Amino acid sequence: MFELHTQLIKDSVMVGDLSLSRVLLCNDSQYPWLILVPRRADVVELFQLSRIDQQQLLDEISAVSAALAGHFRADKMNVAALGNVVPQLHVHIIARFKEDAAWPRPVWGVQPAVAYADETLQQRMTELEQLLLPHGLQSARSL
Amino acid sequence: MFELHTQLIKDSVMVGDLSLSRVLLCNDSQYPWLILVPRRADVVELFQLSRIDQQQLLDEISAVSAALAGHFRADKMNVAALGNVVPQLHVHIIARFKEDAAWPRPVWGVQPAVAYADETLQQRMTELEQLLLPHGLQSARSL
Repeated sequence: MFELHTQLIKDSVMVGDLSLSRVLLCNDSQYPWLILVPRRADVVELFQLSRIDQQQLLDEISAVSAALAGHFRADKMNVAALGNVVPQLHVHIIARFKEDAAWPRPVWGVQPAVAYADETLQQRMTELEQLLLPHGLQSARSL
Repeated sequence: MFELHTQLIKDSVMVGDLSLSRVLLCNDSQYPWLILVPRRADVVELFQLSRIDQQQLLDEISAVSAALAGHFRADKMNVAALGNVVPQLHVHIIARFKEDAAWPRPVWGVQPAVAYADETLQQRMTELEQLLLPHGLQSARSL
């Protein structure tokens, strides 16, 4: 049975579900940063997903990346499946800017996370819901 | 016309070509680290590839990751398209180990690269060619 890793629960806010993936907003206000977690039990590596799930994940990565890139006018999108700390397969999709806190380095371990203030979080969640609804998002807040 | 970014040429050794991607060995002997570069001109983001190319790239990422993971008995595979420094779309595929130089951090910026010694490089290239030939690799050395 699919269960979200406790560390991911701790570090993020649930935006909702796409066809395959749970969509999390990383609770670091320094970057527009989503995490896709395929709702499959016991999957650590991309290649352990079935080919159909891999293609669905790719479609979701592509759609979410393009949506974030356009909406936030990102200078670059970073897409990464690392998992050295949290083995459960999860894909970071991060909109990067030449003036952001870590540029041009990858974001991990450069700056401590800066949690969203309550109001900013609600605004960001609404923004993301509107952005991802056309891609089939089932919003967590409306469930 | 596809041309490899000069920084990628500088930092790597060409292993060969898969159906879509040029396969580079990152010249850092601390990690088994390949880089896939789709041979398409002027592509920066994954979502800018055609859907057919995206699926082909996914198949190549999946095959190469699984091959490296099995051959090197990696503890974790890291797969990432970042591109903050080199915008040309390229996908890092890195076999990670709990005792490696950067674990559990991502590899970028943690330790300076340690170039392969000549003999070790030739051994590693032969090893990778044998590993990837079943996946359709056209070796750079035999061309």
